[in-house]
Amino acid sequence: MSASKPNQVKLVEVGPRDGLQNEKELVSTEAKIELINRLSETGLTTIEASAFVSPKWVPQMADASEVLAGIKRHEQICYSVLTPNMKGLERAIEAKVTEIAVFGAASESFSQKNINCSIKESLERFTPVIEAAKKAEIRVRGYVSCVLGCPYEGEISPQKVAEVSKELFDMGCCEISLGDTIGVGTPLSTRSMIEAVAKTVPIEHLAGHYHDTYGQALANIYASWDMGISVFDTSVAGLGGCPYAKGASGNVATEDVAYLFKGMQVDTGVDLDKLVDTAWFIAGILGRKPNSKLSRVMEKAD
Amino acid sequence: MSASKPNQVKLVEVGPRDGLQNEKELVSTEAKIELINRLSETGLTTIEASAFVSPKWVPQMADASEVLAGIKRHEQICYSVLTPNMKGLERAIEAKVTEIAVFGAASESFSQKNINCSIKESLERFTPVIEAAKKAEIRVRGYVSCVLGCPYEGEISPQKVAEVSKELFDMGCCEISLGDTIGVGTPLSTRSMIEAVAKTVPIEHLAGHYHDTYGQALANIYASWDMGISVFDTSVAGLGGCPYAKGASGNVATEDVAYLFKGMQVDTGVDLDKLVDTAWFIAGILGRKPNSKLSRVMEKAD
Repeated sequence: MSASKPNQVKLVEVGPRDGLQNEKELVSTEAKIELINRLSETGLTTIEASAFVSPKWVPQMADASEVLAGIKRHEQICYSVLTPNMKGLERAIEAKVTEIAVFGAASESFSQKNINCSIKESLERFTPVIEAAKKAEIRVRGYVSCVLGCPYEGEISPQKVAEVSKELFDMGCCEISLGDTIGVGTPLSTRSMIEAVAKTVPIEHLAGHYHDTYGQALANIYASWDMGISVFDTSVAGLGGCPYAKGASGNVATEDVAYLFKGMQVDTGVDLDKLVDTAWFIAGILGRKPNSKLSRVMEKAD
Repeated sequence: MSASKPNQVKLVEVGPRDGLQNEKELVSTEAKIELINRLSETGLTTIEASAFVSPKWVPQMADASEVLAGIKRHEQICYSVLTPNMKGLERAIEAKVTEIAVFGAASESFSQKNINCSIKESLERFTPVIEAAKKAEIRVRGYVSCVLGCPYEGEISPQKVAEVSKELFDMGCCEISLGDTIGVGTPLSTRSMIEAVAKTVPIEHLAGHYHDTYGQALANIYASWDMGISVFDTSVAGLGGCPYAKGASGNVATEDVAYLFKGMQVDTGVDLDKLVDTAWFIAGILGRKPNSKLSRVMEKAD
């Protein structure tokens, strides 16, 4: 295997936060804790557990502190939370998280409509958050959304993605997660984008966050891995999606990606059976089937 | 774009045959004709229309002659049918098809269980069929199933796939369709298999036929294209599947593959909107939604 193709890949499980946040029916705190506890047993090393955001805007994440207090933590697992501002960070520090994440965009219009400020303003807001996090010895992850297209602007230039990524990296984010928020990318645009970003941020600090809205996520993940990307955001049972993209399907399922890498003989450390069990557990809570090909195939015969 | 990555790709639409054959409820001849007529308007250049097989074994294909007689043919489109034996070929000649296909396997057990004979015997049976087809100036396509795994034997060696492919090619098949019947392959096994086969059959005579059972089809198609494969079998609305694979999802959806290549700036000649309309048409006949991410996203708002 050539040096540029990682033989080990980290999957960042975003199901409990990015996956659940758009669920209209409130999921019980108990179920969220059980979900994270089960995920902690699968071999995953990073789990985005919740978000310290305004409960007015994201009611599903209102119980972030209770969730973080309730889970059984594993020493080797990084529990991450989304914290858009100082208030969120204070709650995150109180909850003793190992990582926080800030959420930026590569599209000016998306930034305005999603977080009510320009890209520049959003980065300015993150500055004190990142600095305070570093002081508290908390790792910071930076999301960049709309890296392969925007629901308002359409195409986004790879150069713009590279600029925002570099700013977040220079501000102290140790991992930049590149999000195809509306899932429109294909391997060609994915490759061009990564090529541009990798010129400004070392490729080992980049993560691919691809949505499967148009069925392209695994092809994009394979293309990204082929270029040297070794971190991918995935969501158990394919939980979540983008409210701006029609068709409801969104985050790529952790188990489908884990199957891909298992087949590629690339180590993810993940136990597929446990992952599939967890997918069926949370899907059951939500009253539906996992949005994952693997989980549907591996459903136990009754 | 490098010489090995085709800038033009042919999609072989297998929905009306491979897609419908396992549907338990009989689809009306009228609906099948309408499906093929709609597909003929999408820009597709090869449509597998039906199969001249025993109605006892495949009742859904009993009306093959009526379907072929009823469709509005386009001069530039190749209408293909599956014909396992001389009797089938005679019916195919009568129906004035432009191409026939024979169906072999790379797995001894699958051959025994699926067509009740050894691989060697199956090839012997095809010999007179292929010879007679060539005399009638009918193109012959050869399917090889289980190229990345067998429901009975598990792993299949790339060498075995290469041997069977070469035999079919030498017998006169002008295109060898490599089928991941149970959808277990990932880009690594796909690449190894193609590497082996391309040593025995020129790569421009190979086609990729990948099932999406485990969600890997688009990644495998991208990897195959990257190696130089320029023909892919796909099924509108993701019709069909393999009765031997759990989970029901099977053939990769034509529209998802067409979207991939459109994004890759690779010409398929296909009109996505017309394809999605056709997917919803046949899904409506079957009383369900298309098994395609693209078609679900592009569903018209009502």
